[in-house]
Amino acid sequence: MAADLTSRIDALKAELAELEAQLPPPVSPLAPAGFPELPEIDGVRFATAQAGVKYKNRTDVMLAEICEGATMAGVFTRSTTRSAPVLRCEEALEAHTADPAKPGKFAILVNSGNANAFTGGRGFESVDTLRAGVAAALGCPAEKVFTSSTGVIGEPLPHSRIETALGGLCAALDAGHTRSAAEAIMTTDTFPKGASASIELDGVPVRLSGFAKGSGMIAPDMATMLVYIFTDAKIAQPVLQQMLWLENASTFNCITVDGDTSTSDTLLLAATGRADMPVIDEFSDPRARVFRTALQGLMRDLAQQVARDGEGATKLIEVRVTGANSSGAAHRIAMSIANSPLIKTAIAGEDPNWGRVVMAVGKAGERADRDRLSIRFGDILVAENGWVAPGYSEEAGAAYMKQSEIVIAVDIGLDSGKATVWTCDLTHGYITINADYRS
Amino acid sequence: MAADLTSRIDALKAELAELEAQLPPPVSPLAPAGFPELPEIDGVRFATAQAGVKYKNRTDVMLAEICEGATMAGVFTRSTTRSAPVLRCEEALEAHTADPAKPGKFAILVNSGNANAFTGGRGFESVDTLRAGVAAALGCPAEKVFTSSTGVIGEPLPHSRIETALGGLCAALDAGHTRSAAEAIMTTDTFPKGASASIELDGVPVRLSGFAKGSGMIAPDMATMLVYIFTDAKIAQPVLQQMLWLENASTFNCITVDGDTSTSDTLLLAATGRADMPVIDEFSDPRARVFRTALQGLMRDLAQQVARDGEGATKLIEVRVTGANSSGAAHRIAMSIANSPLIKTAIAGEDPNWGRVVMAVGKAGERADRDRLSIRFGDILVAENGWVAPGYSEEAGAAYMKQSEIVIAVDIGLDSGKATVWTCDLTHGYITINADYRS
Repeated sequence: MAADLTSRIDALKAELAELEAQLPPPVSPLAPAGFPELPEIDGVRFATAQAGVKYKNRTDVMLAEICEGATMAGVFTRSTTRSAPVLRCEEALEAHTADPAKPGKFAILVNSGNANAFTGGRGFESVDTLRAGVAAALGCPAEKVFTSSTGVIGEPLPHSRIETALGGLCAALDAGHTRSAAEAIMTTDTFPKGASASIELDGVPVRLSGFAKGSGMIAPDMATMLVYIFTDAKIAQPVLQQMLWLENASTFNCITVDGDTSTSDTLLLAATGRADMPVIDEFSDPRARVFRTALQGLMRDLAQQVARDGEGATKLIEVRVTGANSSGAAHRIAMSIANSPLIKTAIAGEDPNWGRVVMAVGKAGERADRDRLSIRFGDILVAENGWVAPGYSEEAGAAYMKQSEIVIAVDIGLDSGKATVWTCDLTHGYITINADYRS
Repeated sequence: MAADLTSRIDALKAELAELEAQLPPPVSPLAPAGFPELPEIDGVRFATAQAGVKYKNRTDVMLAEICEGATMAGVFTRSTTRSAPVLRCEEALEAHTADPAKPGKFAILVNSGNANAFTGGRGFESVDTLRAGVAAALGCPAEKVFTSSTGVIGEPLPHSRIETALGGLCAALDAGHTRSAAEAIMTTDTFPKGASASIELDGVPVRLSGFAKGSGMIAPDMATMLVYIFTDAKIAQPVLQQMLWLENASTFNCITVDGDTSTSDTLLLAATGRADMPVIDEFSDPRARVFRTALQGLMRDLAQQVARDGEGATKLIEVRVTGANSSGAAHRIAMSIANSPLIKTAIAGEDPNWGRVVMAVGKAGERADRDRLSIRFGDILVAENGWVAPGYSEEAGAAYMKQSEIVIAVDIGLDSGKATVWTCDLTHGYITINADYRS
């Protein structure tokens, strides 16, 4: 009997797998309604190509050209096994910081399908060959070419396929090609991610536009995955870099899908200076605050889009921690909650299992006092004073969990440290995507 | 057409769920062949009962009585939200340490189904009531009663159901009841976990016997879940405690299922002193080394059984890190690998995805040099000198991954720090178990 049952189950599973393979590629249920209309940024042009690095029948290379006179800022993964492109980007940024007035255009070349990480000396050869190729094709110094690669780790990058595409890329450059640029850098992403902002700095209109990719291996330690932001503002390099660092701390460094930090995380911000404005060359310039606010909004939007496209995600989770000993402590507690597999699976199952939140606060390694702790799901007070709140009902908690966007708010009750992070739930989809043989 | 496909898929899924519900409760494929024959320990007796704390038709309370003159050692979770029973155990151990000669028997009372964690002042009332009840029923001081509770967090413990069972428990005490004791403390465990050792200390035969429970919320920070070990050796309390601490560091603190640390982790070691031997009252006593070796073997066995019963586990994974800057660094790198969802899902999918091992080394936050790193799957050299090993073939890696016990060995190539940890793979089973509404 048991054997009959098992073989019937196996047959059903096989049929199911066959049918599911016929479904169109799924898009995250948390995806925005569509790709936003991104403004053109004066001084920036994009092109994409199908180089066949790994994927077939889709674009996999993106080139961005940035005008002479622009300033660039960047943050990168702190992984000790970071990739050759990341190491070269760090060198390029250092050279730019040392000599921001060096003549020549900038370029950013990105491929998907291969991360060129843990590829030994050959990894650097690939990067150097591509930087030289872009420099020759665009007429810019090789030191001003930034490259990124994303995809499988440990396989040599077939860089000649990309080299072959460079001529066509240069011919196709256009300021309007942001959506196709965002698509060309996708790997397991189910939708392209873009965001923009338009502001006025002392009456001068300024635009910001950016796009990102990322879906798994998301626990950024500096920046997450690949993010490119462009603006026509005129901002001195040290100020631009400082703003990017600061805003990164509360945006891309506040998302996690699986607690796994990529070897390739790269965030670049280019300011073309084409807006008709006096340069911002002091961080204390009042316009810097206006710009930072817009930059933060754009970065948070992109960061949340990455969390929304977390592998297998069905719920977006915002974790707000207040009342911790410091903002660092609050961040670590929030990340302990956001990375807990038991919390992420409970939310996937729409279970208001607040006991697991208590557990994650307890394991975070930060000061916490059980009897001062309070926990809310959205506006619902779940627990306080070391126990379930008197007015809490399991039915209210369960009803709240049916929403597609969940807020877990924890007050530690000790001091004023606070932090907010974003993540997604942990579902069968994550297992299916990542337990499959490398694709 | 797409709608037809979707509805056919939904129908198949429903049928599948119905059939799967008819299967007998699954036992981990990594379970040992059977529960071992455990030796009786002179001075220790066990009894179990069905108190109906939460589960129906199974035992859920275990009482152990330990003779007067015994010494006790313990380690507990470092969670800042640890449960009332854990806090009271810490007090009891402190009192015992201060006055090891206090007359009277010891007792250990454990219930499954409810963790009595985050239950406010009521949690302490439950523990105190039960300690007084056991003291009265057994005729021992309440301060010498240790209790543990495991199960759901945040619900009041219906302690009167356990109180009612105390008389029957005392009447049923028997030295041979270890298997039923190991079964009574199970929650999501799929098999009971026991281990033993028999040694000679200067010609005197001495026995050790222990059991454990644990399956999810496993990332012990002191000890893991509930573990009880008994010996008839005669060992002074400070020496016993020191040995337990030391061996815990390389056994229970070296396993992880999901990186989530329980509020209730408790490890107790009781030495009855009934063996006919002079007391071991110095850590430097040569017999202490013999005892420690046996204790370590027993604890490692139980720890690995917990990893083997990890929720949804289909593979046991041993992660060996050598060549790190320190043993602490090696441990943190090993845990970074063992807790990586991307590595655990790759192994579930039998994918020799060594690039993800590189990623996990990189994110660990410890010193590592990409070009000195080497990675082995079992005896297969996969990567060295910053890239894939020349003799490595993907086929060999894929064949190795089909085994049910996987060794990932990483040499950092810097110094002599080393550590070994154990974990299991991350499968659909883990999601199913934990995404279900609290059961």
